[in-house]
Amino acid sequence: MSFVNRRAVTIEWGDCDAAGIVFYPRYFAMFDWSTASLLAAALGMGKAAMIAKYGIVGIPMVDTRAKFHVPSTFGDEVIIESRIERFGRASFEVHHRLMKGEVLGAEGWEKRVWAGRDPDNPGRIKGYAIPDEVIAAFQA
Amino acid sequence: MSFVNRRAVTIEWGDCDAAGIVFYPRYFAMFDWSTASLLAAALGMGKAAMIAKYGIVGIPMVDTRAKFHVPSTFGDEVIIESRIERFGRASFEVHHRLMKGEVLGAEGWEKRVWAGRDPDNPGRIKGYAIPDEVIAAFQA
Amino acid sequence: MSFVNRRAVTIEWGDCDAAGIVFYPRYFAMFDWSTASLLAAALGMGKAAMIAKYGIVGIPMVDTRAKFHVPSTFGDEVIIESRIERFGRASFEVHHRLMKGEVLGAEGWEKRVWAGRDPDNPGRIKGYAIPDEVIAAFQA
Amino acid sequence: MSFVNRRAVTIEWGDCDAAGIVFYPRYFAMFDWSTASLLAAALGMGKAAMIAKYGIVGIPMVDTRAKFHVPSTFGDEVIIESRIERFGRASFEVHHRLMKGEVLGAEGWEKRVWAGRDPDNPGRIKGYAIPDEVIAAFQA
Repeated sequence: MSFVNRRAVTIEWGDCDAAGIVFYPRYFAMFDWSTASLLAAALGMGKAAMIAKYGIVGIPMVDTRAKFHVPSTFGDEVIIESRIERFGRASFEVHHRLMKGEVLGAEGWEKRVWAGRDPDNPGRIKGYAIPDEVIAAFQA
Repeated sequence: MSFVNRRAVTIEWGDCDAAGIVFYPRYFAMFDWSTASLLAAALGMGKAAMIAKYGIVGIPMVDTRAKFHVPSTFGDEVIIESRIERFGRASFEVHHRLMKGEVLGAEGWEKRVWAGRDPDNPGRIKGYAIPDEVIAAFQA
Repeated sequence: MSFVNRRAVTIEWGDCDAAGIVFYPRYFAMFDWSTASLLAAALGMGKAAMIAKYGIVGIPMVDTRAKFHVPSTFGDEVIIESRIERFGRASFEVHHRLMKGEVLGAEGWEKRVWAGRDPDNPGRIKGYAIPDEVIAAFQA
Repeated sequence: MSFVNRRAVTIEWGDCDAAGIVFYPRYFAMFDWSTASLLAAALGMGKAAMIAKYGIVGIPMVDTRAKFHVPSTFGDEVIIESRIERFGRASFEVHHRLMKGEVLGAEGWEKRVWAGRDPDNPGRIKGYAIPDEVIAAFQA
């Protein structure tokens, strides 16, 4: 998958903990919106439009991991680079690299499901096949 | 309104900022769930059941204020005392007192709407009259 | 006080609650960083540099209020306009207006203290007189 | 390591996202405090006391992962079971199981460092050897 999205994030006072560095759950929130931004950039529409167009309920996370190499603090300007590493039938994997200038500050990995209502049980969700046009949008 | 609900909250590491004290937006999150707990205690049902039973979409905030008297830090055990101070036709006002032992650490005030779908415009919400039985539950 | 700072904020998925709109404590976090950005713009230095230069520990909140006029949801691009409305000896008041295009979505008010270590009791903080040069930076 | 700590957590409205389920970064915040609670239970002192007693700055995360099996929503009461799976010289690994009754809702894994100031460079931190008495407290 060659498509890469980069977005700038400023670390805020409220992202930091009592040690003065980013409270790591906040990195996952940053990565979450980076995935939304990556899809929006590739598909040319925002998350709400994507959900409506493809008849899904969202892209829930099933497995995620992060490694923290160099801490960041409030006022730091970082760049998060995101790309899809693999498409499965109904799931996909994302990799994020948080860069502090030339330094790799943190990394995240995600496995998400392309999920819609289960027609046999509307109270539950199930994986839907990812449309070919969605996959194609990342091959550019 | 005589009904008072008290709940214990432990301040967590992730609630605190780089100054080592609670990041004040977290107090609003604590107060929000204190209001949910207050209604649950008075009505004898949780927020999801309340929403379903009364056909509302929620109790959105329209105006809230807090004063911070004495800071708290991670590991502190506090008690939040919550009561409804006034019912209007479609809105109500809540007061929260966060106690650190005998000391008043923080206070919050909320004005919320008892809100449902606007039948003339389902994409919008509007205030619904608060049912008498809801108001009565706080008169005990 | 004539100095106004504007910053663009994109509402993220993680800012929203189960009703699909911004969970209001998140507005306070946005306003908090807007105040940091306002001071950084007026003083020409970031929050960490300001804390170091003026020998303070921070600008803790003592009283804050917000009104929510029109909800926002993920993907919305808003502008937060912030200005200082009043300087006291050791405190100052900030007003934030969150604009959705031409529409006023939310407002916030803050009273903060210019706070340093209490020389008589280093474990406590106290208000310090706000330096004239800080006040002058907002008169431009 | 045989020592297990269990704590009850109520899922709050503000923990949930626009899909009505827990926004997954919040699970990491829950797990973070579960680790603090696990150490507090084994060592018989809170996080602030532990930091002071052992001369460390904290237990920063270097690598963490979570899998999400069954979603939770506001009002759900869950139990988080936490244990240390391995002690290294200056790091340790934690495993969390979030139980919804008999059902495993989510799991978390953490690798953290027992970290103090680097005496050769006080602006940086480094791993310190974990004291034998700390390790012994988990062998009970």
